[in-house]
Amino acid sequence: MFRPSHTVGTFTAVQPIQAVRWAPDCNAVRIIDQTALPEQFVERDLRSLDDVCAAISSLAVRGAPAIGIAGAMGLVVSLDAFSDQTVDGLRARAAVHAQRIVSTRPTAANLAWAVNAVLADAMRPFASGAEALRAMREKANALLADDAAMCRRIGELGEPLLADGAQVLTHCNAGALATTGIGTALAPVYVAAERGRRVSVLACETRPLLQGARLTAWELSRAGVPVRVITDSAAAGAMRDGRVDLVIVGADRIAANGDVANKIGTYALALAARYHGIPFYVAAPTSTFDAAIAGGAAIPIEQRGRAEVACIAGRAIVPNDVPVENPAFDVTPADLVTAIVSDRGIHRPPYRFEP
Amino acid sequence: MFRPSHTVGTFTAVQPIQAVRWAPDCNAVRIIDQTALPEQFVERDLRSLDDVCAAISSLAVRGAPAIGIAGAMGLVVSLDAFSDQTVDGLRARAAVHAQRIVSTRPTAANLAWAVNAVLADAMRPFASGAEALRAMREKANALLADDAAMCRRIGELGEPLLADGAQVLTHCNAGALATTGIGTALAPVYVAAERGRRVSVLACETRPLLQGARLTAWELSRAGVPVRVITDSAAAGAMRDGRVDLVIVGADRIAANGDVANKIGTYALALAARYHGIPFYVAAPTSTFDAAIAGGAAIPIEQRGRAEVACIAGRAIVPNDVPVENPAFDVTPADLVTAIVSDRGIHRPPYRFEP
Repeated sequence: MFRPSHTVGTFTAVQPIQAVRWAPDCNAVRIIDQTALPEQFVERDLRSLDDVCAAISSLAVRGAPAIGIAGAMGLVVSLDAFSDQTVDGLRARAAVHAQRIVSTRPTAANLAWAVNAVLADAMRPFASGAEALRAMREKANALLADDAAMCRRIGELGEPLLADGAQVLTHCNAGALATTGIGTALAPVYVAAERGRRVSVLACETRPLLQGARLTAWELSRAGVPVRVITDSAAAGAMRDGRVDLVIVGADRIAANGDVANKIGTYALALAARYHGIPFYVAAPTSTFDAAIAGGAAIPIEQRGRAEVACIAGRAIVPNDVPVENPAFDVTPADLVTAIVSDRGIHRPPYRFEP
Repeated sequence: MFRPSHTVGTFTAVQPIQAVRWAPDCNAVRIIDQTALPEQFVERDLRSLDDVCAAISSLAVRGAPAIGIAGAMGLVVSLDAFSDQTVDGLRARAAVHAQRIVSTRPTAANLAWAVNAVLADAMRPFASGAEALRAMREKANALLADDAAMCRRIGELGEPLLADGAQVLTHCNAGALATTGIGTALAPVYVAAERGRRVSVLACETRPLLQGARLTAWELSRAGVPVRVITDSAAAGAMRDGRVDLVIVGADRIAANGDVANKIGTYALALAARYHGIPFYVAAPTSTFDAAIAGGAAIPIEQRGRAEVACIAGRAIVPNDVPVENPAFDVTPADLVTAIVSDRGIHRPPYRFEP
């Protein structure tokens, strides 16, 4: 995802490639298949509604900002076959597709936000379905461009939080692979590294799907940022040993009061950070804020399938007759969050996000 | 490891089988190979020093009490080929073997304790090497019998901590598979269940080697105790949801001040339990206490190999150029431990264990 380009200070700065983009003929969404990393680098073209939904629900494309953009672009390509319909016909079809795409990942605010933004554009007056679809494509394009710019702003705003020599602990992957730019939680790391600051990262492996071990380690290593992988349960010990200066994680949804839904395990890290007096930051775009939800208790938590926990690489690691629980997210209460870095600034408690 | 025997109340009580015992001809230590569970139930006979050391360091036999007994019995069988030596010759050989066995797992206090107890018996006056070896075998036998009795006492003493309907969270495996009896952390669960109490267990999977998912789930399910598996990082969320009444874990070494070295991840659970006001118990035999060590900072923490974290079932989950950290244990400070249940009673803070 990164190719070395030029050297800034002691750091080899890098140019991102995109986790989500248009295929050259613009009738497909081209994604990096994140289920194949780090063993294989594979790109896939999504052309149909089924392709788009399967890619999002299987986590081939993942990360709240990236699935928002992929969902928005996917809605457009899924309607290509219906461009000869009337405006009303196209709108009805678009609403059905949008609902199916949004329902693939119920926790991520960005997905509904981006898909509904594209859908809303179809509601303006148009002479034909084709014209409405063109407007939707333009909107999806604008979201794609905005996302990369949003990442850069989060990186610029968050970068002063990292002193020279800073040891950053992160969870899951909120990096370039989770967005169409330089990431959210990792954006301040990339910007600090670009500016010659020595920063290093401890990446929690992030069971069950190991996004930290597979993806965060891969993209940071490729970008020349020192990174080490630990099991999730080793994080508290690393904090106790004085090897963590700050924690930065992403978010899937942030309630009006600042409660943060993010990858399962985030809450345990926030508790450990608080106990050790270590700052705990959340970096997320404004599209992650859901001011319609007052607090974390109202955020729906996606329960994913048994196999993600009970099987690894085809081997059963849990006896067949023993049930498992697999919540994809947990909620970190706002009072454990030192600050939230968004594309609009650094927000500090008490949080009050308004629609 | 358990076979249903008779019914007490609504619970099917069970008879334990043994994780560590003598092979029928007494010239081998027969263990359940815990690296094969839950897919296969395999027993292995350890006949040589290399067999014994390999079984302990590969975790085929594991759990602080079980490796203590296996090490003690293993020392005896490893000396069978030297029984025609003089007393001094046998003692010298025994000291060399003992040192190699003890060094396989530097954190577990029980291993050094049990092996040295057998070694000490060889220092009494004997007419021949064979006679000294016979005394060592008797000592190993006594330790084996004591271990099962110790488990039962921990179970009886700890059982009142579990109310009817109690939901217990545990980490790693400190059950029957970790001892030669009904376990340590799981002993109160088994005793409560025998007495018709409805208790259920949330088992943390325990990365990297998944002893919770593979072993705790297997032995509890086999014994008819309701158990569910969660990822380690889901424990804090389960506590927040009110689904954990108490935490019970085992220990690999307990310092004089009550600091507890146990499986990596224990410390994070203790922090989360404290935050949620949930009692956090450690259950361990007296042989785990190391009064010679004043506090946890002096406990040596075993660093294990890269592959345990970086590969699962032969697949690389971490990019090859990214380092990993794999501490096998962490230290939970005594002030986070509600009580320590040993075979001698329930110890509460301030802890002062004396030699």
